[in-house]
Amino acid sequence: MVVSPEVSGDRKVTFRILAPKAETVTWSGGDIQGKRERNLKKGDDGVWSITLDPVEPGAYRYNFSVDGVSVIDPRSPAVSESNNNVWSVVVVPGSELMDERDVPHGAVAAVHYHSSVLGRARRMHVYTPPGYETNDTKYPVFYLLHGASDSDDSWTSVGRANFILDNLIAAGKAKPMIVVMPAGHTSAAGFGGGRPGSANEFEDEFMKDIRPYIEKNYRALADRQNRAIAGLSMGGAQTLNLALGHVADFGYVGVFSSGIFQRNLDDWESKHQAELDDKAKDGLKLFWLKTGKDDFLLQSTHNTVELLKKHGFQPVFDESAGGHTWLNWRQYLIEFAPQLFGGAAEKAAKN
Amino acid sequence: MVVSPEVSGDRKVTFRILAPKAETVTWSGGDIQGKRERNLKKGDDGVWSITLDPVEPGAYRYNFSVDGVSVIDPRSPAVSESNNNVWSVVVVPGSELMDERDVPHGAVAAVHYHSSVLGRARRMHVYTPPGYETNDTKYPVFYLLHGASDSDDSWTSVGRANFILDNLIAAGKAKPMIVVMPAGHTSAAGFGGGRPGSANEFEDEFMKDIRPYIEKNYRALADRQNRAIAGLSMGGAQTLNLALGHVADFGYVGVFSSGIFQRNLDDWESKHQAELDDKAKDGLKLFWLKTGKDDFLLQSTHNTVELLKKHGFQPVFDESAGGHTWLNWRQYLIEFAPQLFGGAAEKAAKN
Repeated sequence: MVVSPEVSGDRKVTFRILAPKAETVTWSGGDIQGKRERNLKKGDDGVWSITLDPVEPGAYRYNFSVDGVSVIDPRSPAVSESNNNVWSVVVVPGSELMDERDVPHGAVAAVHYHSSVLGRARRMHVYTPPGYETNDTKYPVFYLLHGASDSDDSWTSVGRANFILDNLIAAGKAKPMIVVMPAGHTSAAGFGGGRPGSANEFEDEFMKDIRPYIEKNYRALADRQNRAIAGLSMGGAQTLNLALGHVADFGYVGVFSSGIFQRNLDDWESKHQAELDDKAKDGLKLFWLKTGKDDFLLQSTHNTVELLKKHGFQPVFDESAGGHTWLNWRQYLIEFAPQLFGGAAEKAAKN
Repeated sequence: MVVSPEVSGDRKVTFRILAPKAETVTWSGGDIQGKRERNLKKGDDGVWSITLDPVEPGAYRYNFSVDGVSVIDPRSPAVSESNNNVWSVVVVPGSELMDERDVPHGAVAAVHYHSSVLGRARRMHVYTPPGYETNDTKYPVFYLLHGASDSDDSWTSVGRANFILDNLIAAGKAKPMIVVMPAGHTSAAGFGGGRPGSANEFEDEFMKDIRPYIEKNYRALADRQNRAIAGLSMGGAQTLNLALGHVADFGYVGVFSSGIFQRNLDDWESKHQAELDDKAKDGLKLFWLKTGKDDFLLQSTHNTVELLKKHGFQPVFDESAGGHTWLNWRQYLIEFAPQLFGGAAEKAAKN
């Protein structure tokens, strides 16, 4: 029986697929050791395989391509949904904050709702923290948006968001919170909105359907200081759109590997003068941006930070190593969540 | 761009996969029109396809096999986990009780917990009904077990259990309830327990981990009359095992397409004399069994019904058309759920 994937004690990872008739088999997926594509070698038994040097702890999406046909790992049930396909996922343990450990766990619900804006059924994922189901406390809410190659399940299936929150909460580093992960693609396929300055279905759906659904159906604290929003890449642009358009509604804003996507920022600036000069910005506790040095959106982030400063925002910006990958986005979540709602990092920053 | 699957207005379903170099491409999956295997035909563009005559509403698992390599549909993000692999899923609408309709929806949570019995991390799925998150009511609990080819996500991903409950509750046919769908395979792979009379890890895990977790972490009514259990196939055998071994704990029992799996039932009977004669059986409100006329387990069901009657149980047994398929299991859930906790069918039966 073919075993795949196989993660050894020293974090070497072997991928295998039985394909005796195939001429070429390749592996593609999330960035591992700087590569997104690899060739597999065929064994005498018709099993194609590759073993990677020890891999950094985390979760990685991957698929095989067998003579040009995209194939998830036939020997593994672990998957992550993308916008219009499915990836296999291998979890490489060894991280105190990303592993599934024996601490109290929250629950991640798939929530189906009717979108009045889109006129059809939609789904989001909602993390409720340990203890949520048995007490009557109200919780702060963190809206966490995915990227263009993702779905509403991505922050948990590859982003490890639920385990990261479980571990941060157990360690006293983050406050218990509800984390809402909506579906960012409002068109049936493709890049669904998120460009500030254009008609924005997602903004409309967020304000009229998603946020009201959560505040009606969950024990959610519904004031600004208990509402955070962040997103990666496309979700970062959607976050900017929502945070600048409705700044009085949010206490905390996070932009991961993103920025305002316009080429002509002057033009964009003049169109959004009123938003940028909204005095409600003074009530923001945190406007946090982080992007990798190798990220193709680094310049966008820089431009956005400058624009925010020019209009009196106080963005906190830092560059990390690496590029436009889940390796960074999981790490950014680990850094951002403790700064919310009076968490450990927010308290530390005040002292 | 290849579109697959495509469901037409008259419920014809077309499957397509681009595989220009392949010699043979087949489709396999859940029973559709009496077939689990089909050959696809190659077009000049390298796209293999098949169009089925109008398909009964429901959800169907399927995969392709491309020159012997198992491939989920590369053009679809909808999947259902099995015990050790993943299937694509096509949803064919047209059923009042199975469709995702514009009614209040419950939420289905993936719940990670530490199993003390198995000494490792485990997962279950938990449906909470509409309104659960905002009120402080306690709810009855229905434990719903999957089959040998399934995982804890199967009852929702292919069984439509959440939509069935949403629709039954909206129609006033079923009472709002928590539905707990644990993982029945206790070994890492293969048929994990469920045989009454043998050492049974799942029984142990259910009693020591799963049920206590739910009754501690959810607003669960914890008396017998508010606790139901049912399962399909392997899960039906596990249900019998739990219901006979702990009859005082359950008010309602459902066995879908299953029975006691022993060849020598006399032998089994003598070993379980004490359980079978437990007077607590008199407190059972319902012991419901249903199996299809073409099911290979029909004889097992008959034998089990006879044995139950002999020992003073009052089983309600019926045969349906069809065989050992999700077509039946979804329908059995539609029939069983309204008989629980004072639902419409339970009230009707009393009048």
